[in-house]
Amino acid sequence: MASKVGEKSISAYGEARSTVEGKPLDAETIRKMNAWFRASMYLCLGMLYLRDNPLLKEPLKLEHLKARLLGHWGSDAGQSFTWMHMNRLIKKYNLDVLFVSGPGHGAPGIISQSYLEGVYSEVYPDKGEDTEGMTKFFKQFSFPGGIGSHATPETPGSIHEGGELGYSLSHAFGTVFDNPNLITLTMVGDGESETGPLATSWHSTKFLNPINDGAVLPVLHLNGYKINNPTVLARISHDELTSLLVGYGWKPYFVEGSDLDSMHQAMAITLEQCVTEIKEHQKKARETKTPFRPRWPMIVLRTPKGWSAPREVDGHLLEGFWRAHQIPITDVRTNPAHLKVLETWMRAYKPEELFDENGTLIQELKELAPTGNSRISANPVGNGGLLRRPLHIPDFREYGFKDIDAGLTIKGGMANMAKFLRDVVAQNMNNFRLFGPDETESNKLSEVYKAGKKVWMGDYFEEDKDGGNLSPDGRVMEILSEHTCEGWLEGYILSGRHGLLNSYEPFIHVIDSMVNQHCKWIEKCLEVEWRARVSSLNILITATVWRQDHNGFTHQDPGFLDVVANKSPEVVRIYLPPDGNTLLSVMDHCLRSVNYVNVIVADKQEHIQFLDMDAAVAHCTKGLGIWDWASNDQGAEPDIVMASCGDVSTHEALAATALLREYLPQLKVRFVNVVDLFRLISAIHHPHGMSDKRWKSIFTVDKPIIFNFHSYPWLIHRLTYKRPGQHNLHVRGYKEKGNIDTPFELAMRNDTDRYSLAMAAIDLIQTLGNSAAGVREKLYNEQLAAKSEAFDNGVDPEHIRNWKWPFPKE
Amino acid sequence: MASKVGEKSISAYGEARSTVEGKPLDAETIRKMNAWFRASMYLCLGMLYLRDNPLLKEPLKLEHLKARLLGHWGSDAGQSFTWMHMNRLIKKYNLDVLFVSGPGHGAPGIISQSYLEGVYSEVYPDKGEDTEGMTKFFKQFSFPGGIGSHATPETPGSIHEGGELGYSLSHAFGTVFDNPNLITLTMVGDGESETGPLATSWHSTKFLNPINDGAVLPVLHLNGYKINNPTVLARISHDELTSLLVGYGWKPYFVEGSDLDSMHQAMAITLEQCVTEIKEHQKKARETKTPFRPRWPMIVLRTPKGWSAPREVDGHLLEGFWRAHQIPITDVRTNPAHLKVLETWMRAYKPEELFDENGTLIQELKELAPTGNSRISANPVGNGGLLRRPLHIPDFREYGFKDIDAGLTIKGGMANMAKFLRDVVAQNMNNFRLFGPDETESNKLSEVYKAGKKVWMGDYFEEDKDGGNLSPDGRVMEILSEHTCEGWLEGYILSGRHGLLNSYEPFIHVIDSMVNQHCKWIEKCLEVEWRARVSSLNILITATVWRQDHNGFTHQDPGFLDVVANKSPEVVRIYLPPDGNTLLSVMDHCLRSVNYVNVIVADKQEHIQFLDMDAAVAHCTKGLGIWDWASNDQGAEPDIVMASCGDVSTHEALAATALLREYLPQLKVRFVNVVDLFRLISAIHHPHGMSDKRWKSIFTVDKPIIFNFHSYPWLIHRLTYKRPGQHNLHVRGYKEKGNIDTPFELAMRNDTDRYSLAMAAIDLIQTLGNSAAGVREKLYNEQLAAKSEAFDNGVDPEHIRNWKWPFPKE
Repeated sequence: MASKVGEKSISAYGEARSTVEGKPLDAETIRKMNAWFRASMYLCLGMLYLRDNPLLKEPLKLEHLKARLLGHWGSDAGQSFTWMHMNRLIKKYNLDVLFVSGPGHGAPGIISQSYLEGVYSEVYPDKGEDTEGMTKFFKQFSFPGGIGSHATPETPGSIHEGGELGYSLSHAFGTVFDNPNLITLTMVGDGESETGPLATSWHSTKFLNPINDGAVLPVLHLNGYKINNPTVLARISHDELTSLLVGYGWKPYFVEGSDLDSMHQAMAITLEQCVTEIKEHQKKARETKTPFRPRWPMIVLRTPKGWSAPREVDGHLLEGFWRAHQIPITDVRTNPAHLKVLETWMRAYKPEELFDENGTLIQELKELAPTGNSRISANPVGNGGLLRRPLHIPDFREYGFKDIDAGLTIKGGMANMAKFLRDVVAQNMNNFRLFGPDETESNKLSEVYKAGKKVWMGDYFEEDKDGGNLSPDGRVMEILSEHTCEGWLEGYILSGRHGLLNSYEPFIHVIDSMVNQHCKWIEKCLEVEWRARVSSLNILITATVWRQDHNGFTHQDPGFLDVVANKSPEVVRIYLPPDGNTLLSVMDHCLRSVNYVNVIVADKQEHIQFLDMDAAVAHCTKGLGIWDWASNDQGAEPDIVMASCGDVSTHEALAATALLREYLPQLKVRFVNVVDLFRLISAIHHPHGMSDKRWKSIFTVDKPIIFNFHSYPWLIHRLTYKRPGQHNLHVRGYKEKGNIDTPFELAMRNDTDRYSLAMAAIDLIQTLGNSAAGVREKLYNEQLAAKSEAFDNGVDPEHIRNWKWPFPKE
Repeated sequence: MASKVGEKSISAYGEARSTVEGKPLDAETIRKMNAWFRASMYLCLGMLYLRDNPLLKEPLKLEHLKARLLGHWGSDAGQSFTWMHMNRLIKKYNLDVLFVSGPGHGAPGIISQSYLEGVYSEVYPDKGEDTEGMTKFFKQFSFPGGIGSHATPETPGSIHEGGELGYSLSHAFGTVFDNPNLITLTMVGDGESETGPLATSWHSTKFLNPINDGAVLPVLHLNGYKINNPTVLARISHDELTSLLVGYGWKPYFVEGSDLDSMHQAMAITLEQCVTEIKEHQKKARETKTPFRPRWPMIVLRTPKGWSAPREVDGHLLEGFWRAHQIPITDVRTNPAHLKVLETWMRAYKPEELFDENGTLIQELKELAPTGNSRISANPVGNGGLLRRPLHIPDFREYGFKDIDAGLTIKGGMANMAKFLRDVVAQNMNNFRLFGPDETESNKLSEVYKAGKKVWMGDYFEEDKDGGNLSPDGRVMEILSEHTCEGWLEGYILSGRHGLLNSYEPFIHVIDSMVNQHCKWIEKCLEVEWRARVSSLNILITATVWRQDHNGFTHQDPGFLDVVANKSPEVVRIYLPPDGNTLLSVMDHCLRSVNYVNVIVADKQEHIQFLDMDAAVAHCTKGLGIWDWASNDQGAEPDIVMASCGDVSTHEALAATALLREYLPQLKVRFVNVVDLFRLISAIHHPHGMSDKRWKSIFTVDKPIIFNFHSYPWLIHRLTYKRPGQHNLHVRGYKEKGNIDTPFELAMRNDTDRYSLAMAAIDLIQTLGNSAAGVREKLYNEQLAAKSEAFDNGVDPEHIRNWKWPFPKE
């Protein structure tokens, strides 16, 4: 039977060829495994096609078919095959195994396994292990009110929906960090393998410690075809593919073929070899207490796409070709001959031998599966909220800046918050990690290294002692891939832990789509009763647009907030703390929250501080509010409202307020700051929203409002749509104007600098008429002078750089 | 000297170690190359630090320094070193070479080369080859009004800014497709290598035909460090790295070390080996007319980060460590000792030996560079608009649907447009390509295969004959990586050609950040006088949100338009043609345009057709307009305006209009359709915008407007901000509600279905009062019945699926 794998790329047919030889299974086991496989495939077809007559006790007729045929067949067989072989080893070695399904739309493959091992019916009693249950089980698939064709949140044991391809491995690694006993068996689609995020995520082994962490066992499924193309990895030589995987740091074992009996033997011995190696590496590292990076084992499984379908229909290839990708025979509703082909094919799996007359899987097959939580689809890691323990969080107030002189004190809020993060790390050494794409130090968070260094399982050099901050036992995860960082973090929290991603604002758009997908995942989880809530996905965005003057135009895009704001109000939160103490308060809040995507925007540089800790907590609790100390409209209606959201934006808005107060002391200016962006929305549309009544008490109904915003101005208009006095709202923000500038010049280009704001105020206050024309001109001249000085010197004038609020509080 | 490379990962120091041995350079050449290298490094430091005293003719003082020190030193040496060695081969073999600089912020390295070879001064005469010119050349770098620290559009010879990492290789491949003589020498940063997009782009060789295409010669720069971390590829064993690159399909040659003399010999012989191999492979393929995929040569260049800087400053490592990443010594303005270190370091390059007393590079060094357009930074490919020839475009009108019965005819507009694309391909066989992530067939564009199949240089199997549509000579580029497709396309158009990317809407967010970066590139190009305009980046988005009902929630996000709309009005255009003939007209327009990012949103399924070709052209020319045939307000003010943008949205809005006309025939309903989204903006803010006067004539000032939009509704509010009657505008669109549904159910969830729209109209028309309550209830019941039928059957009722406009035109 199984022969050695060959030299060049080959199609998937024939007797098994495998790296490891041997016949560990007896004939009886093979017989049962074949039966299980047939049951799996039968269930998959049932999901794709049937709404009635589930066991084909009657001849297959049109009325048994769904009206709209949806779903994917292509990768189902390979995934079922892999899952069932792991069952054998779970029983043999008492393993703790999670399954991540990478290939797109492969849900039938894994849902069939969950149904066969009984978990599905336990979770969804109406889809019981009988004819009626199977009918419902079939009908609900890709059917209104039912479940999708990915491993959606409704899928027991799934933490990875896979609607978008590329994240299976990074998610899988996220689940095994700090989970030393877990093996996450990960099907990697060969289509998915062509995506960038997947291609780089193979390198995750350089960040996996065999002592503290579990193991990922990837099965690269050389299914051969995508929607309509061969896959790259299935069409390079055997040697090239081996080199690639070895180069990524893995030890690939090959299992290739289509003949079932020999494939069972090959897969059984190969999977067992992999599990044994994993255990040996872990044992060695744990016994010697010496972490090392082994070449972790993995499997390349080459089977025909749509394995076990008819090879040809009407003279065109089906099994083993891209035509097997989705619904394998599409016209069964209109072509009676094809309906017959389908029936014959389904009957060839012999459902009557697999399920008893009640429609229940026969006992000898049931026994192939593990029991209880050892069943893959019942693994609690797949419903990670169950395992989640709240963080030990020190009192953030203790870390606050003291003796704040509002508008005068200049400090680095990010570096200070890092001390809080350091202690969060220290107090949660096995369930909190900080993630970031090589920017943690740059983002002023390096204080955390005192509690946990950067995880590094690559080679070490002598020079690393000079401030390298690397360790196999670190708590900070850094690779220059936003995709990998985000994927790890998602896997980590979905499996019940906590974390924070820190990233430059300029390039956070790199993971727009990943964050979208995660938002959709947690939103759907809210509709799935048995899903326990997981920690929020916390994203700290820093190195913000307003301090990207020197890096230039490429580094200027604050539009991630627009992408996030498009997601459901149930799951997204956006905070822009204006200073250090509010940053602490917001961070504490986010780390305690569940089931959100929290986005925190705060610059990493030193900035003016505004609020002492009590005021900061009060301000964050309200989410927005009037800053009395910066307003002079006490007891009266203001002439104008100056509002801000974002630290640099607040600084300039405050300076504008000071200019107005200095030059036009008779003006009444109210200063408002917004921390919690969604407070601006109507309470009808967002849980954090506020009533129109409260809105009016802050923003007035008839006074001009200048709103200096961190991001693109449109978002504020959107959030305040239909607010009373909305037409009085004049939003300033980044409007895609930038170059190599000083910070002041960048603000000026976008009309967000103090002078532009103050002049705008003068223009808007109708009662001033022309009386302030002289002041306006003075402001204009000061602006020009400042710009000119910046242009000549390459640095902003001192009075801009170190501006402070000139009015004492009392 | 040069010894063989070792077995494990090593730091970068010592005599050269290289795969190829030999000493091709004589001592005199080495002496000159060292001098050139010193000149390069001197210029780099000058750019980082100096605003005066460029040749250090006086002792270095504070006033010679820039006030704000910005820029990056880390990768400059390696890049300069590589460039200068290619110069030797350009002269020897008369090569056509473009340089792509992958590492972030490495501009000094390449700008110094452009200056030394004289191109910079030709392009910017005020930065002449003399002391005054050098002063300006230094001062402008990372200085207000000057140039950035990336290879920005101002950089002669650059098509790749590199502000965001990960796209160097895909851009490089884009330049060489259909450019058979071009070698694009591509520095790949080892930091950049960790990104997903870069990691998968190594596979581009599977799509490169050695007959028609040129070659990419990657130099993977193992610089060792990122901002604050070692790089993964510099910390895996030599064998593992070799395996990885071999696995990616390359033949890696190593050049490692720091000793300059031996490094020159090693680099010279290795680079020559690579160029020779490239030429041999091309010759073989071209002479035999047999395309094949060789293992293309590449170089791994391991040099110390910040090579040639002091190894230590104050006992801390500088050269060869991450501290050399940005400004190598940061406190020279405040630490006199460090100022002295800098001066000593700069003088060690002996500028007085390199530049004559006028500040001009000495003649014997000038002679090292090629001349004219053979100089890398003068290569016209680097200003691809110069080489751009307009497409031969057949008359799109000839492809139009004829005999359109507005609202009755049902046809597939996308499949029809594919015939037009087919002929565009056929008539432009060496300067137009179609790109897409494995979706061209799925997107109904497979007709193009008749003119050009899919490029495939992987292995072929027998089964490919059954509809594989693969060919080494194809014109369609498909890999399951949106990043790679987009990167190829960008490189292809920036080097003077034309193309189109087709992609599913669900996952176009994957390339949000890439598209942002491209928008910024072309916008900045508008400010650079000598940049000739390039073809627009055309993105056809299909498989849209409203036909993702069956794929579920993960596939539903139409928000790419929000991301695009944030970019400058100078460069972005968005079109939503409602039917097949308008799609043709829009496509023709986009293919002819230059310097835009054009986004076209159109579903791929069969839909109702509305406009014959003349009407389509007229409608697209106006960008939006009243559809008289669907309106009944002729000669009067309407009671309500029903507007739509997007094909499915238009269909439902039209059906709503029909319901209103049927049930409330006395109502006057005006039907408006928008093709060109930016027509909605004020003419003040966008070149396509329209005046308020025109707005009023279409949308009225006081009538309710229901606007059924393809994407998230906010975008319409944003675009129509401050329009007269803006408060009458009621926008419906996708609001993040979805599941496994039928199309009708999905629309209903988001209130965009015909019944919801018609009921909204009744609610909004105040003159109706309660008189229409009965009609409203009838609509509600019909809606419920339709939903119920859909839910039971899994398919929408016939009257929904095949709805047609019930009123004859006249």
